[in-house]
Amino acid sequence: MNRKMVLYTVGRIILLEGLLLLIPLAVSLYYRELLTVWSFAVTVAVAAVIGLLLMFFNRHADRTLFAKGGFITVALSWIALALIGALPFTLSHAIPSYVDAVFETVSGLTTTGASILPNPEVLDKGLLFWRSFTHWIGGMGVIVLMMAVMPAESGRSIHFLRAEVPGPVVGKLVPRLRDTAKILYLIYLALTVLQIVFLLCGGMPVFDSVVHTFGTAGTGGFGIKSNSMASYSPYLQWVITIFMLLFGVNFNLYYFLLLRRVKPVLKSGELWCYLAIVLVAVGLITRNILPLYDTFSETLRHAAFQASSILTTTGYSTTDFAAWPELSKVILLLLMMVGGCAGSTAGGLKVSRVILLFKIVARDLKKMLHPRSVGVVQVSGKPVEEQTLNGVSSYFALYMILLLAVFLILSFEPFSFETNLSATLACFNNVGPGLAGVGPLSNYAAYSDFSTIVLSLAMLFGRLEIYPILFVLTPSVWSKKG
Amino acid sequence: MNRKMVLYTVGRIILLEGLLLLIPLAVSLYYRELLTVWSFAVTVAVAAVIGLLLMFFNRHADRTLFAKGGFITVALSWIALALIGALPFTLSHAIPSYVDAVFETVSGLTTTGASILPNPEVLDKGLLFWRSFTHWIGGMGVIVLMMAVMPAESGRSIHFLRAEVPGPVVGKLVPRLRDTAKILYLIYLALTVLQIVFLLCGGMPVFDSVVHTFGTAGTGGFGIKSNSMASYSPYLQWVITIFMLLFGVNFNLYYFLLLRRVKPVLKSGELWCYLAIVLVAVGLITRNILPLYDTFSETLRHAAFQASSILTTTGYSTTDFAAWPELSKVILLLLMMVGGCAGSTAGGLKVSRVILLFKIVARDLKKMLHPRSVGVVQVSGKPVEEQTLNGVSSYFALYMILLLAVFLILSFEPFSFETNLSATLACFNNVGPGLAGVGPLSNYAAYSDFSTIVLSLAMLFGRLEIYPILFVLTPSVWSKKG
Repeated sequence: MNRKMVLYTVGRIILLEGLLLLIPLAVSLYYRELLTVWSFAVTVAVAAVIGLLLMFFNRHADRTLFAKGGFITVALSWIALALIGALPFTLSHAIPSYVDAVFETVSGLTTTGASILPNPEVLDKGLLFWRSFTHWIGGMGVIVLMMAVMPAESGRSIHFLRAEVPGPVVGKLVPRLRDTAKILYLIYLALTVLQIVFLLCGGMPVFDSVVHTFGTAGTGGFGIKSNSMASYSPYLQWVITIFMLLFGVNFNLYYFLLLRRVKPVLKSGELWCYLAIVLVAVGLITRNILPLYDTFSETLRHAAFQASSILTTTGYSTTDFAAWPELSKVILLLLMMVGGCAGSTAGGLKVSRVILLFKIVARDLKKMLHPRSVGVVQVSGKPVEEQTLNGVSSYFALYMILLLAVFLILSFEPFSFETNLSATLACFNNVGPGLAGVGPLSNYAAYSDFSTIVLSLAMLFGRLEIYPILFVLTPSVWSKKG
Repeated sequence: MNRKMVLYTVGRIILLEGLLLLIPLAVSLYYRELLTVWSFAVTVAVAAVIGLLLMFFNRHADRTLFAKGGFITVALSWIALALIGALPFTLSHAIPSYVDAVFETVSGLTTTGASILPNPEVLDKGLLFWRSFTHWIGGMGVIVLMMAVMPAESGRSIHFLRAEVPGPVVGKLVPRLRDTAKILYLIYLALTVLQIVFLLCGGMPVFDSVVHTFGTAGTGGFGIKSNSMASYSPYLQWVITIFMLLFGVNFNLYYFLLLRRVKPVLKSGELWCYLAIVLVAVGLITRNILPLYDTFSETLRHAAFQASSILTTTGYSTTDFAAWPELSKVILLLLMMVGGCAGSTAGGLKVSRVILLFKIVARDLKKMLHPRSVGVVQVSGKPVEEQTLNGVSSYFALYMILLLAVFLILSFEPFSFETNLSATLACFNNVGPGLAGVGPLSNYAAYSDFSTIVLSLAMLFGRLEIYPILFVLTPSVWSKKG
C-alpha cells in the first residue's frame, strides 16, 4: 500500500474541512457567540496545521493508489473528519464529553441524525449550523467534494468514488471523474437552493430553512428543536416530505433529465420500485394509524412524512411514531433496512440492492426446478454481471452479520430489546431515531461510552458501505506486503 | 411434472402414517382412553383409505421423478401428514379447533415444539405420545423412513433426500440411497434407545422417558408438563442437555465412528465450530445470569441446558429464560438462527451454512483488496464448488426475506415487538418457545387463526429448508409445461 499517498490525501481532506469550518465560524460571528467563535477558530487552526503537515511530509509521494489504498484513504479521511469536526462541540462546552461529541459529528457526517442532545434548542446557532452542515457535506461525500473543487492529483480516483458513493455499481456520468464529481455537486447545490426557497415561501425563518435543508439534502435528520418538525405548518411538512423523497433518488437520473434524456429515467426499475415502496408503506400506515388522529388529511400527512423520512433514512419526524401500533413500527423498521436509491444521499441497503437480491433468489429458484436453464439477471433491460450479483449477496451477508454483532454488543446495556434493536438498525442504516428508548422524542445519551463508540462505528459502516471501515479495522491489511 | 408419480408417493406416505398411528393407538388402548382410541382408529382408517386410493389410481405411473417432482412430493407429503395427523386431537376434543390441531401437528412433525396448549398435563397419554412421536418421525424425515422400510420404487430418490435432509450439501454414505436411509435410521434408533436407558436410570417414569426422548431425538421440544423440564432432577437435566447436543451433530459423523474412521470426525470444521458456539454461549450466559441463581453449578446447568436446547432448536427449558437479562435473550435469539449441524435433526440455518457464509464474505473481502487473487473456499481441507457457495448466499437471502415477511404479517396482531419477532424466529427455525408472550411458560394460543396458519407455514419452511413449500405455493410451478 502506498502509505505516503494515503496520508497526503487525508491531509488534503483535513485541510478542506478546515476551510469548510470557516462557514460556521462566520455564522457564529454573525450571532456574536464568542466562545463558539473561539472554538471554531481553534479547530480551523488545528485542521490547517495537521492537514498542511501531512501534505508537506508526504509531498513526494508516488501518486498512484490501488484498491486497498483507496479504501484506507476514504476510511481514514472520514475518521479524521469526525475527530476534528467534534472539537468545536467539546471546546465550547456544548457537549463536554469528547466521545459524545465524536458520536454527534459521526452522526452528522454519515447523515444519520442520531443525537445525544436532549434539547438542541440550547445550542449556539453556529454549532447548530455546523451540526446540520456536516449532513450536507457527508451526504454527497467529502472526497467527491475534494475531487470537484481541488486540482486532480491521482490517476485512480475511481476507487474513491466507489468507496464513497453508495450502491452496488458506480456509474461515471462523463468520461472524466472530476467532471462527474462537479456535475453531482452542482445538481446537489441546485436542489438545496430550491428547497430553501420553498421553505422561505412557507414562512420558515432563514436560519431554520437553511439548516433543515441541509438535513434534508444529506438525508440526515438533525433538527433544531427537540420535537423535530412537529411545530411547523402542514405546508412546510409537505415540502420537506417531497424533498426527502427527491434526495433519495439516484442523482444520475437528474443528470439525464438535464440532458433531456427521459427514457433512462422512465426505464429505471429502481425509481419505480422506490416509489411503489413509498406508496404501499404510506397506504398501510395510514390505515393503521387512522384512529390516532383527527382528520384523514392529518393522518396521511404524518404517514407520508414518517415513511419518506425513514425510507430515505433522513429521520425527521412530525409525530412520535414510537407510540404507533406494532404494524406501523415494523413497517418503519423494514423501510430502514431498504433505504433509498443507489447514488443518492440516503443510507440503508439501497433499493437497487434489494431488487437484485430478489432477482438472484428468483433465478436460483428457477434453476432448482430446471437445472439446465440459463439464468441471466437483467436490470432495466440490461444483463447484470455475475461479479456484481455475487457482490450483492455477499454484501447482504456481511451486512446482516455486522448488524447482529452490533445488536449483540448493545445487549450488554440494560435497555429493552426494542430499544437496542432499533438503535442498531437506526445507526447502521443512517436513519437516526429508533423506537422505544431511542424514539423520535428521546435520544442516545443513555448509552455508555463503549456503546457510543460501537454505534459511531456502525454509522460509519453504514455510510461507507462497510468495506472501508472493515479494512481499517483489520490488522492484516496494515502489513507491509501487498 | 409427473403428477401421477407424485400422488402415488404421497399415497404411500399417508399409508405409512396410518401404520405409524397404530402405535399411539396401542398406547391409548393400554391406558384405556376410549375416546382417544376411537379417534386414532378413525384416523388410521382415513389414512388407509386415502393412501390406498391414491396409490391405486396412480399405480401405473411412470416411476421417474425429476427435481420439481421431488420437491412437490416432499411438500405435499408433509402437508398431508399434518392434515391427517391433526385429526386425533380434534376428534377427541382435546384441541377443538382444527386449525390449532394442525398447528400442533406441524409443530410436532417439523420438530418445532411450539404449542397452543396451556396445560399439556390434561391431555390423554395416547395424544401426548403421538405429539412427541411426531417429533421422532419428523426429525429424521418421514420420506427417509419410507425409503428405509418400504420397497424402493423410484430411481431418483436423491431428490427426496435432498429435500428432506437439512444442510447445504447431501452426502450419500453408501452407494445405494436405500442403504443410506437405513443406516441413518439405525443410528437414530440406537441413540434413542440409549437415551431412554439413561433417563430410566435417573428414575424418570417409563412414559416420561420415552416421550422426552422422542422430543430430544427429533430436537423437537414437546414436553408433558407446562413447566417443561423444570421439575426433573439435575441428573436428568444434564442427560437431556448432552443428548440434545448429540442429536444436533451431523449423523454422518456417527457412521464414520461406527466404521472406526476417526479422522473425518476430527477434521470436521462444522463439529468444532458447533462445540465452540456452545462453549462461548454457555460461558457468556452463565456470567450474565449468575446473580439470578443460588449456586454456580445451578447457574451453569441452566445456562448449558438452555443454550443447548435453543442452539439445537429443541426448545425444552428448565427455567423461564424469557425472564433473563437482555444479553442472554439476544444470545438465545442468535443461537436460534444458527441452529444445529447439517445432516442432524436440528433446525435453523445450520452451522455449516453459517461457516460457508463467513468464508464467502472473507473471500470477497480479500478479492476487493487484491482484485487478481484466486479465491477458493475450502471446508475441511476440500474446495467447495462455486454452485454450492452461490446456493448458500442465495438461501440466506431467501431465509431473511421470508423471515421478515412472516414478522411483518404477525405485526398485524396486537402483541409486542419482542413477542412477534421471537415467535417468528422460534417457528421459522423450529425452536418452539420464544420470548415475552410466547416464552417457555407461555404458549401460542393467543394468535388468530390466520397467524396460526402463517406460523404453521413458517415451521414447514424451516424444516424443509424453504424450497419445497415455496414451490408448492407458487402457481406457475403447477402449470402443465416443464
